[in-house]
Amino acid sequence: MIFLTRKAEFSAAHFYWNDDLSPEENEHVFGKCANRNGHGHNYTLEVTVSGEIDPVSGFVVDLKVLKDIMEHEVVGVYDHRHLNHEIPDFKTVIPTTENIAIAAWKRLDGKIPGAKLHKIRVYETPDLYADFYGQGAL
Amino acid sequence: MIFLTRKAEFSAAHFYWNDDLSPEENEHVFGKCANRNGHGHNYTLEVTVSGEIDPVSGFVVDLKVLKDIMEHEVVGVYDHRHLNHEIPDFKTVIPTTENIAIAAWKRLDGKIPGAKLHKIRVYETPDLYADFYGQGAL
Amino acid sequence: MIFLTRKAEFSAAHFYWNDDLSPEENEHVFGKCANRNGHGHNYTLEVTVSGEIDPVSGFVVDLKVLKDIMEHEVVGVYDHRHLNHEIPDFKTVIPTTENIAIAAWKRLDGKIPGAKLHKIRVYETPDLYADFYGQGAL
Amino acid sequence: MIFLTRKAEFSAAHFYWNDDLSPEENEHVFGKCANRNGHGHNYTLEVTVSGEIDPVSGFVVDLKVLKDIMEHEVVGVYDHRHLNHEIPDFKTVIPTTENIAIAAWKRLDGKIPGAKLHKIRVYETPDLYADFYGQGAL
Amino acid sequence: MIFLTRKAEFSAAHFYWNDDLSPEENEHVFGKCANRNGHGHNYTLEVTVSGEIDPVSGFVVDLKVLKDIMEHEVVGVYDHRHLNHEIPDFKTVIPTTENIAIAAWKRLDGKIPGAKLHKIRVYETPDLYADFYGQGAL
Amino acid sequence: MIFLTRKAEFSAAHFYWNDDLSPEENEHVFGKCANRNGHGHNYTLEVTVSGEIDPVSGFVVDLKVLKDIMEHEVVGVYDHRHLNHEIPDFKTVIPTTENIAIAAWKRLDGKIPGAKLHKIRVYETPDLYADFYGQGAL
Repeated sequence: MIFLTRKAEFSAAHFYWNDDLSPEENEHVFGKCANRNGHGHNYTLEVTVSGEIDPVSGFVVDLKVLKDIMEHEVVGVYDHRHLNHEIPDFKTVIPTTENIAIAAWKRLDGKIPGAKLHKIRVYETPDLYADFYGQGAL
Repeated sequence: MIFLTRKAEFSAAHFYWNDDLSPEENEHVFGKCANRNGHGHNYTLEVTVSGEIDPVSGFVVDLKVLKDIMEHEVVGVYDHRHLNHEIPDFKTVIPTTENIAIAAWKRLDGKIPGAKLHKIRVYETPDLYADFYGQGAL
Repeated sequence: MIFLTRKAEFSAAHFYWNDDLSPEENEHVFGKCANRNGHGHNYTLEVTVSGEIDPVSGFVVDLKVLKDIMEHEVVGVYDHRHLNHEIPDFKTVIPTTENIAIAAWKRLDGKIPGAKLHKIRVYETPDLYADFYGQGAL
Repeated sequence: MIFLTRKAEFSAAHFYWNDDLSPEENEHVFGKCANRNGHGHNYTLEVTVSGEIDPVSGFVVDLKVLKDIMEHEVVGVYDHRHLNHEIPDFKTVIPTTENIAIAAWKRLDGKIPGAKLHKIRVYETPDLYADFYGQGAL
Repeated sequence: MIFLTRKAEFSAAHFYWNDDLSPEENEHVFGKCANRNGHGHNYTLEVTVSGEIDPVSGFVVDLKVLKDIMEHEVVGVYDHRHLNHEIPDFKTVIPTTENIAIAAWKRLDGKIPGAKLHKIRVYETPDLYADFYGQGAL
Repeated sequence: MIFLTRKAEFSAAHFYWNDDLSPEENEHVFGKCANRNGHGHNYTLEVTVSGEIDPVSGFVVDLKVLKDIMEHEVVGVYDHRHLNHEIPDFKTVIPTTENIAIAAWKRLDGKIPGAKLHKIRVYETPDLYADFYGQGAL
């Protein structure tokens, strides 16, 4: 059993707002992230898969296939988008780093041939990241 | 004569659009950056000043003063903002990396006590940056 | 269940010395780190918490609160200090990377509202770090 | 129980090729990595050990000893070598990132005085790495 | 006048050898880099161009065009190749970091529409790089 | 003419204090850096040399020689030392980043066979660095 991790980046805008809260409450909970014009980040997505090494190829997963799946399912969908306005994953879910990690998990889980999705890590900045291992994702 | 550089980061949203062009032309020139919902980045600002070392302090510039000026003039103004919608610098100027570097120069030039602004570097991503030395700024 | 990690930095001096050993033994065990004038590092502290996402905010923990606790309990205490001479945590404990991680755990454990402290990572340099999960801390 | 990680780097050449496959199959499975002249990387090796902190030294492992073992067993062996042509570990094993991690585990396991090898991480590029915890190594 | 820099990476193998020297002299001058099986690196190429900002686009250079030229002229040519055996630039020139920078300059100079090539930087490792400004390239 | 840069790191302690100022003035000018127990940093030293490429070796400077000179003249002298107490360069000069860059210049200038010292860059942290080109060094 071995673990392989691949990184990719995307740039997106977001803001934090909960329609069930008053504007004052939103300000209080989210601070300057509540600015509804949105602000943005260069996000880094790390996808970790686990499995056995294929004795023919020496790989746990085909790296090109993994790259294409990450591009097709997450990076190409989120990149240069406004997460609140354009991505259905965040229609009723606030696009925090935590929720982006869960959304990426849902998009990738079960789609990687021959390997098991083990962890999703999302960096919002180099100093802040969330890890999700699939526990509790619907 | 010595040069001192300090870095800071801000997160902002932007998009690329020129009102003098048709939507099709904007698409053609700016690609997916023309998405008017905006997308975002973690920008890094590097400010380089030059001057003589003060024999009393050993500094070319007071580091805390430099940090405060960078925060007050640029980082605190741009951070968590939508550059196109909220920052007057980009009312008629497209917020490309190049133009952000020039705008930061205009905001900082002449405001640093005892040192001369030498260079502004702005990273849009770790793989793309612009340098401006003040030549041609109005 | 999700994991969120926040990083912060502090600069401090330290040296390695055990009063129960002779000067020669200290030299032998600690090499040039036994220089009692001290030397220093830019340390990076990574704090990982775990918990459920609050459906109102989308956060596992209030990021500003976490930042303030890290600043108040660890970064503001250790930054620009000589760990051996000025920090009581290291009065009878040698300030190795391992022991700094345990000391930071003790300072932070139980203080983060709504989340559980999961891991402390301390980098002494980019090439050397210790991880502590709370097992065995008194 | 605490975990300590040390990093080191080495530069090596490799290519991907399985003699049991036809040239066309090798091309298909390995793409441009099948170029038998080889290409190369700056690899990063991360070695994580676990154990109890020695109350005399404050260390879980003697850092200089760990560095020397990493140098003697892996870095000095692989650095500036062509993995396929010169390293017996890869005589019948394709030098993928996964297999390099397993080979480094076999070289280091049981050799670190007073601590247990916990994990080997090998970065082939900053965006691609494998983790091995010893499960299944012969 | 403004400067814009774009980075890209490629992985390649090389070795250092001068046919006019004896094997012993090659060993003496190049040390373990003289191993003729080759070893490899993840190289980083930084291309800096200078020019005036186009008032229509806000760009000094079309970023996609610059990326394509870098890919077509250098990255796609060198990536996953053995520089000594497969790249004509290094038939009679030793592929040191310095000479790779000059070779990349020759490949890119004059090919970037609307901007002037200002500098080529090549990193062989994160701790070693060469800068070339075109002075003396034939 | 080409430029080659090599990096190295050292860890040291320092504090900021001017004996000609009162304790209150030192506090005012230097803030928490005036703590006379000292604090520390992981410094990065970048040495840039310029010259012509030797047609025999392909190098502007022998990399091993450059590494040894950097180690012998600067890194080995400053590493794991308290700059104020143990390094004569800072007996009457405050060890600011600016002054460390100048001191390293004086130690290295004229000692590199076949190449000219072009620039010294010293990082105190990843976000703060000084550049010195030799202008005004005594």
